[in-house]
Amino acid sequence: MTETDDTQGWRVRRRQQVLNADPWLRVWREDLELPDGREVDRFFTIEMPDYVVIVAITTADLILTLRGYKHGPRRICTSLPAGFVEPGEAPLDAARRELLEETGHAAERWESLGSFVNDGNRGGGSGHLFLARGARPVAEPNSGDLERVTVERVSLADLLRAAGNGDIGDIPNAAALGLAAARLGSVRLSSGGDVV
Amino acid sequence: MTETDDTQGWRVRRRQQVLNADPWLRVWREDLELPDGREVDRFFTIEMPDYVVIVAITTADLILTLRGYKHGPRRICTSLPAGFVEPGEAPLDAARRELLEETGHAAERWESLGSFVNDGNRGGGSGHLFLARGARPVAEPNSGDLERVTVERVSLADLLRAAGNGDIGDIPNAAALGLAAARLGSVRLSSGGDVV
Repeated sequence: MTETDDTQGWRVRRRQQVLNADPWLRVWREDLELPDGREVDRFFTIEMPDYVVIVAITTADLILTLRGYKHGPRRICTSLPAGFVEPGEAPLDAARRELLEETGHAAERWESLGSFVNDGNRGGGSGHLFLARGARPVAEPNSGDLERVTVERVSLADLLRAAGNGDIGDIPNAAALGLAAARLGSVRLSSGGDVV
Repeated sequence: MTETDDTQGWRVRRRQQVLNADPWLRVWREDLELPDGREVDRFFTIEMPDYVVIVAITTADLILTLRGYKHGPRRICTSLPAGFVEPGEAPLDAARRELLEETGHAAERWESLGSFVNDGNRGGGSGHLFLARGARPVAEPNSGDLERVTVERVSLADLLRAAGNGDIGDIPNAAALGLAAARLGSVRLSSGGDVV
């Protein structure tokens, strides 16, 4: 790896793979030199597959969700349709495929909500977040995922409340939901979370 | 680990640590039995420290951000104040501390935007997201972080545009920003991202 302007002089002096759990996860130990000359050893970075998360709005203005157990948060959660991008697959194609597989729906209009790496320090895969409008049922759901889930339809306001109540399990779901709500605009919750 | 109702019958048959990179990262290999009797080997789960991300709004209605290189996305990004929760520290206390250290600001009112695990499958640490209103400068920034950053003040609309343009680097930043915008309400972008 060579130094470029973009890294503001962060230089990787040494890089060693410390875990290979293909195809899911690789971990690297990096020894770094910072622009001011400081040396930082044991900076761990992660490689994981890219994934998509989809906020799909039905023609009745409800959002398609999946309800079921998730092993990350280790509890039953409400999740948005999501899944890994296959090798060689474009993120938008992955999003269309996952929406169809997990909910049996196709959508009329797709917008990107942005792409973001998992972790500002460690890297990880990138999440590609999408807003899909005009979603209609076209097939039976058939995800092939490990979890037993039920497809539900929830209002945006209820989902934002769920995010404040611990019912949305993970950060990528929270990001897609929040950015979709911001994009859709003018959502104001009367009981918007606790003042702490 | 025992089976509980909450896990819908997911059972961890075997759990083995495959990476110990304390205090930053531990990885476990789990062999699972699903409710339908299927056995799933090599399911990897991650432990990482909890962290906070703060959307802090100044008395001039601008959001405090940090501009600089981040080694996760490996580029210069706009980030929100954020950092790890120290052992024994309450997330809100960590958020107040990080806002002060990274920006030199204190805020009048704090609201939780929710807590979310990093990854719906692998776990990881939890991100505790906060909205802080009425932020005022009270000290010089002194983060002690590895990165050289500059503190900036950006409008919410500009930050949401940045999220669509790749200038917000990571998913926890996107989540805090999106949920804050949803909470603040009535933000509609005229040029809201590409239709793909």
